[in-house]
Amino acid sequence: MSDTPGTNTTATTGTARLAAADIADLARGAAILGTGGGGDPYIGQLMALEALEENGPVELVTPAALPDDAQILPVAMMGAPTVMIEKLPSVEQFVVAVDALGRYLGVTPTHIACMEAGGVNSTIPIVAAAQMGLPLLDGDFMGRAFPELQMVTATLFGIPATPMSITDDKGNAGIFTTVSNLWAERLARVVTVEMGAAAIVSLYPMRGHQAREAAVADTLSLCVRLGRAVREARAVHADPVAAVAQVLGGRLIHRGKVVDVVRRTTAGFARGEAKLAGLEANAGTTLALSFQNEHIIATRDGVVLATAPDLLICLDMDTGEPITTESLRFGHRIALVAAPCDARWQTPAGIELVGPRYFGYDLDPVRWDQVAL
Amino acid sequence: MSDTPGTNTTATTGTARLAAADIADLARGAAILGTGGGGDPYIGQLMALEALEENGPVELVTPAALPDDAQILPVAMMGAPTVMIEKLPSVEQFVVAVDALGRYLGVTPTHIACMEAGGVNSTIPIVAAAQMGLPLLDGDFMGRAFPELQMVTATLFGIPATPMSITDDKGNAGIFTTVSNLWAERLARVVTVEMGAAAIVSLYPMRGHQAREAAVADTLSLCVRLGRAVREARAVHADPVAAVAQVLGGRLIHRGKVVDVVRRTTAGFARGEAKLAGLEANAGTTLALSFQNEHIIATRDGVVLATAPDLLICLDMDTGEPITTESLRFGHRIALVAAPCDARWQTPAGIELVGPRYFGYDLDPVRWDQVAL
Repeated sequence: MSDTPGTNTTATTGTARLAAADIADLARGAAILGTGGGGDPYIGQLMALEALEENGPVELVTPAALPDDAQILPVAMMGAPTVMIEKLPSVEQFVVAVDALGRYLGVTPTHIACMEAGGVNSTIPIVAAAQMGLPLLDGDFMGRAFPELQMVTATLFGIPATPMSITDDKGNAGIFTTVSNLWAERLARVVTVEMGAAAIVSLYPMRGHQAREAAVADTLSLCVRLGRAVREARAVHADPVAAVAQVLGGRLIHRGKVVDVVRRTTAGFARGEAKLAGLEANAGTTLALSFQNEHIIATRDGVVLATAPDLLICLDMDTGEPITTESLRFGHRIALVAAPCDARWQTPAGIELVGPRYFGYDLDPVRWDQVAL
Repeated sequence: MSDTPGTNTTATTGTARLAAADIADLARGAAILGTGGGGDPYIGQLMALEALEENGPVELVTPAALPDDAQILPVAMMGAPTVMIEKLPSVEQFVVAVDALGRYLGVTPTHIACMEAGGVNSTIPIVAAAQMGLPLLDGDFMGRAFPELQMVTATLFGIPATPMSITDDKGNAGIFTTVSNLWAERLARVVTVEMGAAAIVSLYPMRGHQAREAAVADTLSLCVRLGRAVREARAVHADPVAAVAQVLGGRLIHRGKVVDVVRRTTAGFARGEAKLAGLEANAGTTLALSFQNEHIIATRDGVVLATAPDLLICLDMDTGEPITTESLRFGHRIALVAAPCDARWQTPAGIELVGPRYFGYDLDPVRWDQVAL
């Protein structure tokens, strides 16, 4: 993406270029799609910026433009976002993970991809693509962030997570082949925890025709658009929160001040709950926000307003800056936006994989626009 | 080994044949070298018997007879012995683990080997060798049982544990490459626990010249000799406990009745302590036996009589049958034999790897014959 919208996008080829100048917008947009999880956007921003400044822009390829036989190797970080803040991964590790999987499969990747458009997992694949001189899929397999590796549209389309590689910063590496994507999550999760609660994985190796079908299209471009919308709204003293809601086709559901946060990091996840005492039009109400890396459920005075798989996005009320669950603090003034997820998450199979019940809540999903405010 | 000692052993080639008729003796001997750990010998016996009856005898090759370029792939079960009792592994899984490692390395094994001469890990490689039609190393890399995978003479000789494979009964498989053998233990251990507390691994791939140097020689033959010694002593109403002590060059250090056992299975290990109230010459004394899968420390009335790395072997006082830590029960009448370990375990590097301090005891090793009884 160039800094001027559309300039470098060629409709006929479906390709664009992602340059160092796009990264600040992209990282902010990725933190918005992170819906509270996905790690500190600043870390991802630094790494991607350095990689693009060193290696030049990366070509972005929309899923529809992929040839059938493209060999795509996605790359991601696995672990608790609270750990990622303290433990900056080395950029070399991303290439190590991709290479390990490529060598195991005996294939040379033609494209790198994101599995998760939210948080650092939007920027890690940019680093890998820049360093390897490969084009990057403009899309992902969540359209947001989710906490577990089987929670991707690829699972809905029967694409196996494995063979997958898993690597750490010490030089340890593993390859898994599992009987299900849930087993890939289980085995990779315990190894991630043992590796120090953060690992780099390359997984869901797939061909172009598979990615065309399964990917959530153009989500990296969407990150850039989102970040830019916030920046531009602020520049003209417009409301950045409204700009985010507009780009995502969602709506503001609550304004409130954080009055309580309970969190615990268990088995590689950051779980907890925040309470937001209503402000302005919401004065006198309290909204409870439950998270497991990402925000899962928003309940105001006992009424569930919205749940996963739809997006629940915490923004700073004044600046529109996205706020991760680990940076929620007493006194923060928050605007909570609810926005629609990719339509495939609202199918029965999608809801089984990422709906509230999977996260342990005895609750059917409530859509972003279902409840009258 | 034929049932008649020596008949099938050719001194010039260093090979012998291990037949179905040897298995009962071998399994009993393996349980003796298991020093309380290594799993139920009966399970191992059943599996090896069936494999040899189906596929015919397996050729045993003494380490000195290995050609330089032999490609050895050891195979073992990893996990808590208390789980192995309830969860009989499928024999196909052993070949799956060896094949997975061979394919990853791009090598065809010429020999199968044991890493651990104690317990089920003596018999699992017999099954793999029989099914794959390969000769089996007559030796191992412990000369007994130990609870962790880096605790092998191979580590002392700088032979890496990895690449290694790890497989479960559901069809999940992993390959690890680690920066140290301790890291192989750490990563494989958490995966073993997640796989259901038992996994099959193929590890320490090595060449003939490496195994010649590092192996504890002829320990499978020793298992057969030990088991036969017990059987023959019983047949002529001689003392089977004395026979075991004599074959191992050790001594009886205590006779006692189990009056207390505390055990817990944590992180894939069976830890605990048994108290043996003295009988006969030891009447009036109490011996405490600390175990972590295997027996680690024997202390009588505050005096440490013997510790790992030397062997502490619980035998039924009357029959000489070896008793695993998980089958220690109140009222059991036990003869405790202490016997010397392979000399390389008593070096500083050996003691660091498998001495009492590694197991968490603030204690230098006490040798089997160090204390006057």
